[in-house]
Amino acid sequence: MNPLISKSIPSLSRYSRHALVEVALEEASRFPSVFTRLYPEAALAAGEHADAMRAAGVEVSPLAGLPVSIKDLLDVAGETTLAGSIALRYRPAAKTDAPVVTRLRTSGAAIMGKTNMTEFAYSGVGLNPHLGTPANPADPEVPRIPGGSSSGAAVSVATGLCVAAIGSDTGGSIRIPAALCGVVGFKPTARRVPAAGTIPLSSTLDTVCAITRSVDDCILVDSIIADHPLVIPELPLAGVRLAVPQTVMLDGLDAHVSRAFAAVLTRLSEAGAKIIESPFSLLAEADSLNGFAAPEAYAWHRKLLAERGGEYDSRVARRILKGEHVSAADYIDMHLQRRDWISRMEDALGPFDSLIMPTVPMVAPPIAELAASDDAFFRANTLLLRNTHPINLLDGCAVSLPCHEAGTLPVGLMVAGPSMADRKVLAVARAIEKVLQQ
Amino acid sequence: MNPLISKSIPSLSRYSRHALVEVALEEASRFPSVFTRLYPEAALAAGEHADAMRAAGVEVSPLAGLPVSIKDLLDVAGETTLAGSIALRYRPAAKTDAPVVTRLRTSGAAIMGKTNMTEFAYSGVGLNPHLGTPANPADPEVPRIPGGSSSGAAVSVATGLCVAAIGSDTGGSIRIPAALCGVVGFKPTARRVPAAGTIPLSSTLDTVCAITRSVDDCILVDSIIADHPLVIPELPLAGVRLAVPQTVMLDGLDAHVSRAFAAVLTRLSEAGAKIIESPFSLLAEADSLNGFAAPEAYAWHRKLLAERGGEYDSRVARRILKGEHVSAADYIDMHLQRRDWISRMEDALGPFDSLIMPTVPMVAPPIAELAASDDAFFRANTLLLRNTHPINLLDGCAVSLPCHEAGTLPVGLMVAGPSMADRKVLAVARAIEKVLQQ
Repeated sequence: MNPLISKSIPSLSRYSRHALVEVALEEASRFPSVFTRLYPEAALAAGEHADAMRAAGVEVSPLAGLPVSIKDLLDVAGETTLAGSIALRYRPAAKTDAPVVTRLRTSGAAIMGKTNMTEFAYSGVGLNPHLGTPANPADPEVPRIPGGSSSGAAVSVATGLCVAAIGSDTGGSIRIPAALCGVVGFKPTARRVPAAGTIPLSSTLDTVCAITRSVDDCILVDSIIADHPLVIPELPLAGVRLAVPQTVMLDGLDAHVSRAFAAVLTRLSEAGAKIIESPFSLLAEADSLNGFAAPEAYAWHRKLLAERGGEYDSRVARRILKGEHVSAADYIDMHLQRRDWISRMEDALGPFDSLIMPTVPMVAPPIAELAASDDAFFRANTLLLRNTHPINLLDGCAVSLPCHEAGTLPVGLMVAGPSMADRKVLAVARAIEKVLQQ
Repeated sequence: MNPLISKSIPSLSRYSRHALVEVALEEASRFPSVFTRLYPEAALAAGEHADAMRAAGVEVSPLAGLPVSIKDLLDVAGETTLAGSIALRYRPAAKTDAPVVTRLRTSGAAIMGKTNMTEFAYSGVGLNPHLGTPANPADPEVPRIPGGSSSGAAVSVATGLCVAAIGSDTGGSIRIPAALCGVVGFKPTARRVPAAGTIPLSSTLDTVCAITRSVDDCILVDSIIADHPLVIPELPLAGVRLAVPQTVMLDGLDAHVSRAFAAVLTRLSEAGAKIIESPFSLLAEADSLNGFAAPEAYAWHRKLLAERGGEYDSRVARRILKGEHVSAADYIDMHLQRRDWISRMEDALGPFDSLIMPTVPMVAPPIAELAASDDAFFRANTLLLRNTHPINLLDGCAVSLPCHEAGTLPVGLMVAGPSMADRKVLAVARAIEKVLQQ
């Protein structure tokens, strides 16, 4: 049994890091399409170095020598960043590591490889017609979607290949696959983590962040990639005010998600949390603000689309091309509308410690269904992003943590708050995780 | 003789403030089209209050009770902000003062009135076909343009009606009229002063700032409107490294400006400054970044243009309508290009304490010439903005200070630096002013 699975980082302290990396490398071959590239020598060397330092009595980072994956959206010096595409393969190699990669290396992390993703991060489904789609490990029978765009990232953690996976979240790309694969995803306030050295999707909304197996692990990794350890208060759940927004977020939940969410509310209530059903009718406006990614992506892609449009996933190209005819004035207005909406949302959030809701309104559908039909694909994509995207529009932060019964398909519970409420949201998520694990 | 003229704020300390306000109000009637509205009661009350507090031994702000004007772009509670237009006259009154107006009131300033301006601040010339054009006081014979867009602001200071005038600078709208009228204009780094409560022209470039009669006065007013007093070091000019950019900025100077600038360089050199002629070829790229205002203004104006386009100055409407067909992608690209250009410019600025150049390449042309011909108007407008606008693109800061011989038409010397170099730029400007006044 791979000790990396179902363990949190502190519980791994008694293992040789080199041995853990060896196990992870062996296991990796069992899960196709998760990694687009592996770095066995460098990862083993990091494991060995961590062991040697620990043997010498040096205090190392808790992440030192532990396997971590990097979404192939972030630059690793010396190679071309592909972002799940084949259209970028002729681009020159990155000259330097992305700052987040540098921070991980400085902490001693064993960088295992680069993970597969939705092409250019532009969908929450996780299908990749060029490089294959990593199957969701939660269902050994039916190959189900992993969720995206950080598909390989979530699977690398859910399968115990890595203790943490770095990815990005523009509309839910960390939280959706975390929810569907049954792991923890944290989208911090965007400005806390540098997005330099990444292929952008939406310069307004992109957030570099991570998937882990517990909230504590997520706090640890956040402290490294943000280069600023937040002090997360111990928060007893009794008296914590959790708003359940009644507008849009609970529409059309599938039966399994609905049952799991209801059960969570009961348990949190029993633990003393105040569950407050609140209209939050402002959330109905989020849909009209859903227009940053297309023109921002189009600005970046238009030259490449003209040269190599035929090499794009047609579903991704179609979404990017929606940005072609957006006018500057509409784009500028949308920024102003967003600012106004954020300010009204922040007023509405005032009375609560956090929002809670299902991260995604459904369980992971079978890959075959969505691969076969554009209609089914775009319908699922819209639904997958529905609850997560408003938090990006809010410039907010949110944790998705598993809340399903063992042995059933994963369901994510999202704990969300406004800009720079990262401490509060992490504290609430940790308190909830504790109750759910009892 | 009006003591407010040719005096700096500290030198007014022996006068009754109430008496100074009275003088200013009397004088105001001699200068048509400078104010669009006067507040005699409130200004006199502020003067009286300052006198009473000083008599009671209370330490008041050096600005307390002194006449200050407000460009009619900033909200004053209870009235409609017109921005030099007649198309806004049916809008509701502002509910609160703009933050900068509140800060001035808190300092005790006697707010004299609102000043005339280029319609919607969208030209450096200063003509206003609806409300009249205040004549440049530097030439008692020929009515010359005051420069714009803060036309009334500059004239209110140059005529001694006010010790300071609050205005805005998007491409030069403070520095151009300051240069043409022979007073001091300071465009700080934009983010240092709140732009809330103003009619926007370009949300990217707008800067709220002031015109005064000396650099020391400008430092005082800046400390109030930025709500943060900068400590400006005493800088001996000996050894200060001043770059004179050779690209674009010196092209086609008129003979009077050219002579004045050459004479300044000689005097500064004699005072020990290092005058370094430097190519700064990056400045040739600034023109291609000249595209923020049109789409940003169009986004704000399109509804009003549709309803009341016939009430616009046609020259202003024409410039705004250029924003109609700009695409979001081009606008987004321009932001990225600007960021890249700023970064290269900041590298190029590294070896120098400041840039110096003529603020405007010509002296103020006669009003009649530009009123009569669109061609002449747009040619002059382009030239007026040429040297100032790159500093807005740089997100930088700059002082324009008079550098002509007494009795000749005013010429402005611009001392400029990058973002947040406000202390340095003000220190250099003060040192230069001292040398020029010897």
